[in-house]
Amino acid sequence: MSSQGNEQATIRFEPYGLEVKADIGSALLDVALEAGVHINASCGGKGVCGKCRVIIEQGQIEGGISEKLSQKDRESGVRLACQSKLTGDVTVRITDVSALNKDALIALASGPAQQATLIGADELKAENRYQPAIDKLMVQAQPATLADNRNDVDRLLLALKDKGEHRFAIEYEAIRELPGAWRNSDWQVTATVLRAVYPEAGHNHILRVEPGDTSSRNIAVAVDLGTTTVWAQFIDLSSGKVLGTEGDFNSQIGFGEDVITRIVYAGKPGGMRRLQEAAAKSINGVIKSLARSTGIELNDISLCILAGNTTMTQLFLDMDPKYIRLEPYVPTAAYYPPLRADRFGLALPDHVGLLVFPAVASYVGGDVVAGVMGTGMHKDERLTLFIDLGTNGEVVVGNKDWMACAAASAGPAFEGGGIKFGMRAAKGAIENFSVNPITGEPAVLTVGRSLPKGICGSGLIAAVASLFMAGIMDERGRFNLDHPTDRTREGEDGPEYVLVWAEDAEGGRDITLTEPDVDNLIRAKGAMYAAYMTLLDGVGLSIQDLERVILAGGFGQSINLERSQIIGLMPELPAERFLFVGNGSLLGTRLACMSNPLRAEVGEIVERMTNFELSVAPRYMDNYTSSLFLPHTECEKLFPVICGRLKEARQAVKAMQA
Amino acid sequence: MSSQGNEQATIRFEPYGLEVKADIGSALLDVALEAGVHINASCGGKGVCGKCRVIIEQGQIEGGISEKLSQKDRESGVRLACQSKLTGDVTVRITDVSALNKDALIALASGPAQQATLIGADELKAENRYQPAIDKLMVQAQPATLADNRNDVDRLLLALKDKGEHRFAIEYEAIRELPGAWRNSDWQVTATVLRAVYPEAGHNHILRVEPGDTSSRNIAVAVDLGTTTVWAQFIDLSSGKVLGTEGDFNSQIGFGEDVITRIVYAGKPGGMRRLQEAAAKSINGVIKSLARSTGIELNDISLCILAGNTTMTQLFLDMDPKYIRLEPYVPTAAYYPPLRADRFGLALPDHVGLLVFPAVASYVGGDVVAGVMGTGMHKDERLTLFIDLGTNGEVVVGNKDWMACAAASAGPAFEGGGIKFGMRAAKGAIENFSVNPITGEPAVLTVGRSLPKGICGSGLIAAVASLFMAGIMDERGRFNLDHPTDRTREGEDGPEYVLVWAEDAEGGRDITLTEPDVDNLIRAKGAMYAAYMTLLDGVGLSIQDLERVILAGGFGQSINLERSQIIGLMPELPAERFLFVGNGSLLGTRLACMSNPLRAEVGEIVERMTNFELSVAPRYMDNYTSSLFLPHTECEKLFPVICGRLKEARQAVKAMQA
Repeated sequence: MSSQGNEQATIRFEPYGLEVKADIGSALLDVALEAGVHINASCGGKGVCGKCRVIIEQGQIEGGISEKLSQKDRESGVRLACQSKLTGDVTVRITDVSALNKDALIALASGPAQQATLIGADELKAENRYQPAIDKLMVQAQPATLADNRNDVDRLLLALKDKGEHRFAIEYEAIRELPGAWRNSDWQVTATVLRAVYPEAGHNHILRVEPGDTSSRNIAVAVDLGTTTVWAQFIDLSSGKVLGTEGDFNSQIGFGEDVITRIVYAGKPGGMRRLQEAAAKSINGVIKSLARSTGIELNDISLCILAGNTTMTQLFLDMDPKYIRLEPYVPTAAYYPPLRADRFGLALPDHVGLLVFPAVASYVGGDVVAGVMGTGMHKDERLTLFIDLGTNGEVVVGNKDWMACAAASAGPAFEGGGIKFGMRAAKGAIENFSVNPITGEPAVLTVGRSLPKGICGSGLIAAVASLFMAGIMDERGRFNLDHPTDRTREGEDGPEYVLVWAEDAEGGRDITLTEPDVDNLIRAKGAMYAAYMTLLDGVGLSIQDLERVILAGGFGQSINLERSQIIGLMPELPAERFLFVGNGSLLGTRLACMSNPLRAEVGEIVERMTNFELSVAPRYMDNYTSSLFLPHTECEKLFPVICGRLKEARQAVKAMQA
Repeated sequence: MSSQGNEQATIRFEPYGLEVKADIGSALLDVALEAGVHINASCGGKGVCGKCRVIIEQGQIEGGISEKLSQKDRESGVRLACQSKLTGDVTVRITDVSALNKDALIALASGPAQQATLIGADELKAENRYQPAIDKLMVQAQPATLADNRNDVDRLLLALKDKGEHRFAIEYEAIRELPGAWRNSDWQVTATVLRAVYPEAGHNHILRVEPGDTSSRNIAVAVDLGTTTVWAQFIDLSSGKVLGTEGDFNSQIGFGEDVITRIVYAGKPGGMRRLQEAAAKSINGVIKSLARSTGIELNDISLCILAGNTTMTQLFLDMDPKYIRLEPYVPTAAYYPPLRADRFGLALPDHVGLLVFPAVASYVGGDVVAGVMGTGMHKDERLTLFIDLGTNGEVVVGNKDWMACAAASAGPAFEGGGIKFGMRAAKGAIENFSVNPITGEPAVLTVGRSLPKGICGSGLIAAVASLFMAGIMDERGRFNLDHPTDRTREGEDGPEYVLVWAEDAEGGRDITLTEPDVDNLIRAKGAMYAAYMTLLDGVGLSIQDLERVILAGGFGQSINLERSQIIGLMPELPAERFLFVGNGSLLGTRLACMSNPLRAEVGEIVERMTNFELSVAPRYMDNYTSSLFLPHTECEKLFPVICGRLKEARQAVKAMQA
């Protein structure tokens, strides 16, 4: 996996006259679905079903030509949307248009959530806060003589003092390297210094010394150790440049999908060791891949900063997580002292320091703290709801004056867990979906644009939102078997909707969405919504008081705001109040590498964040029960806009069908 | 080896009317020799030569009866002095008395150097300075509940805070132990805390946590890692009681006798590792032996504090010592951070902290710093000369305002090195010696009172002093072959004196003292004396300005003040100015275990001590050359009393011989 930013182009969809912006290089089908423009498509975007035909009226696209198109079609500008990539501004006509009023179809495409402009090295430099956790300080000393034969360490400390640098503690490993370093380089050495978080209170730790001037070779690794995925970035601390980002699955998955099964596994003989090694192996794979893609030598790495949820952190640090699972859910520690990366099986040189983000509670871990720090909600006046939606769901409410947090037992539905054809966001997973409310025919897009195999979290949300909006599913998640489409039917688990027919699916059987699947999703989103409500209740506030909603988490990168509001996962608020930041944990670890002042804020965040155990919060169960509807029992009050559009859409469909 | 103190008795020697005090349990022959009363004895004190006959006139002794004595002798109270042990006050008549004036014989028995009353736990307690480096703090916490499910570390820190304890850093290993400890003992745990040296500036490090109350089980190990010997003590930090003291040879001896040969060996492939392991093995042997004799479980040990010379310290810490040997003689570091004992192969549990005394220079190491700290010279108004006389010789001059130090390249003669029959102070080594100036017949006492095998440092000093005083050797160390004794003769290495005839010796050949042996000793003592002189010259002072001389070192335990003055090793000053402290390094490490205020003084000592490289000091070579005589070229000026007595003794002998 890798992520990158791109330039944008303008796409005009006819006959609707809708214009949207999208990244150059995006597939046209993706852009259409995101814009709320339905185009039938069954094969996941692989280009084999030939259903997603569009006409390019103005501008150029790349690709989109297939043997499914006749010579005549091609000459008329007909292309397959799933195979067409944007190269610039373009006008596209949808050919398979129902007579449905375009407003009903696109009403909800009210614009995306704000693209987060996240703080980075440039902003930190402008604010004089670019002060990396690690400095490499080169010093040149006078050679030792009989008249000045002070010890090698004192010579280093004196040379550092001459540069105005004080308060050092030199570690054993660095002391060992020093005599050779001085003498192999004409008394010029570079000290790798882990800065004190509070410059006036602690020591600057010298982790390593090298002969000569290596001060420009100072790389940090930011690591997000998630339950499902591991992401890492290489950062050049001498410039602040992010050199590369890579991710992979956490191979602990083989021992259980969620933190609870992993904690249980850790209790078996050898379980702890296997889980620790699996995590280290996954991180090592990502680091190795980064080293390859960036050309960075591991020897130039100075520091690794890691964040993960409390269970992931404890497993990686070889700390038995069993009390995380048992009431009253006590983690071992908030803070861990500075460590060495190689001690925990990371394939990094022995000089590399390891810092681990502190946890607030058993189910509000260092990843959430990193996300809060990275988004700066703890310094902002505005009342903010921070949601970290990964394999687990964590919620923080507050602003610069106070913060309350809680973990929602959302379960694994957002990761495809507990869903009949559920899968993680891997190749072949349906990640986007739209349905024609009249015909009931879908547009299906898969990860990797390959033949559909199953459905992942974002696909599930899109499917439920789309089917619900089209009237093919009711507010309790029950399918409307009276709909003219043959895709709704009675299956072995009760009523179901066929997402992909066997002939278009990998594995050769129908991929369906069942009512128990929908129940699981409704419970998961209900747990999240109830968590926001309960935290706000606790401080006498309501959803409408929220001035900002920040969505973080691996999942948060691909979620669609409107659809998540339709199912009642995200609260109904104007789009401009939403900020999607993607991986908040990686954001926070990256910033911690770059800025000591931000590292200092981590401690303030942990001290200020009050954890609520929702299982014992008085209003939680009521809030949860009320949330087990699409979008919510109190639809008119909490989701008035969605409610209105639902009614309009249903009426439009009825008018069409009549 | 082990050491212990004893009650004293009064012994009166007739016909001289000399009364001395000695420890109950001492052998009469030892007491006589120390008092300057000569009794012939050839077999080292084993009781086989039958020469050391004395008559017990009053009081009782234990033993002394041998088949060498007739029934009549026994009934008359005749005993062998070497086999007689003191049980109380006694009057002893020497039978084999030459007509020599007793004054000439005993003139130098002007009383021993001051027995050092060293500071210990009681004195520290009285001064409120008994504040051990390690505290074990027991805390009882409220069990975790859903309403208070703070993490396990925070629960510990809160409980400590409730006891008025602050500023903690908890180490990784202790964090790992904590969850189990809380829950296995009804939320009562004991934290092992390494106190900050400066309570207001640093952190108290929690090294370990144990379930329940183990606060009374808090043992420290003080270790002196010498070039030749390793000594260790177990100290009960909860009471301040020294539980036991043991020593053994440093098995690094197999790789070389002195630090230089060990540094050279360290440079060979695998050399460092073998030397490090040998040191650890020797320490482990002593610790194991202490555990056996004291009944202490290793698991109850919290801390190990170690001091050694710079080379020993670096070898033990796996730091290449090669630049210690090469000009300009640069050690790697003064200070080492707190470490864990098991990291360096010590057979101690992994929670045991390891602190290492800092060095001042390549040849003035942590052992000297420990000795200075232990004797308190850095707090004393009096101008003090501190001498550490082990395998190496180090000298410190100063008082509470300033300190200058230097290493004397004394060579290994004091340890028996470079001496034809030289050996370390092991079983069979001649450790005490006296000669009858008229007959030239010796009294020979060996370590372990076994058959003589060779001669160690203290024996060498005694032999040279005694032979010189008797006129059998001149001030240049040349033997007087005209003396009537048949023990002086021309040997294969030139003139020599037969210390033990073959029939009394183990190994069956004559044990001799040769002129090259004496040259070696003279060079060694000359280097020491020149070091005192040069340091004093450097600050415009002279020997006579010294208000106190402290002698430390393994060797310092058995040295005789007068004899060392006769050969010119110790300066000529009144006996009451001398203080013999034995193993200063062990003294300092023991006190560091007991007192954080004293640990803080260690840093002050290192900062205040100025090292002089004698090899480049302008006056050193002159001082050295002047010292290559017995006792010194400037005998009249620097050793006036010795000079006068020498003359008297020579005249008395001449009168007798005439």
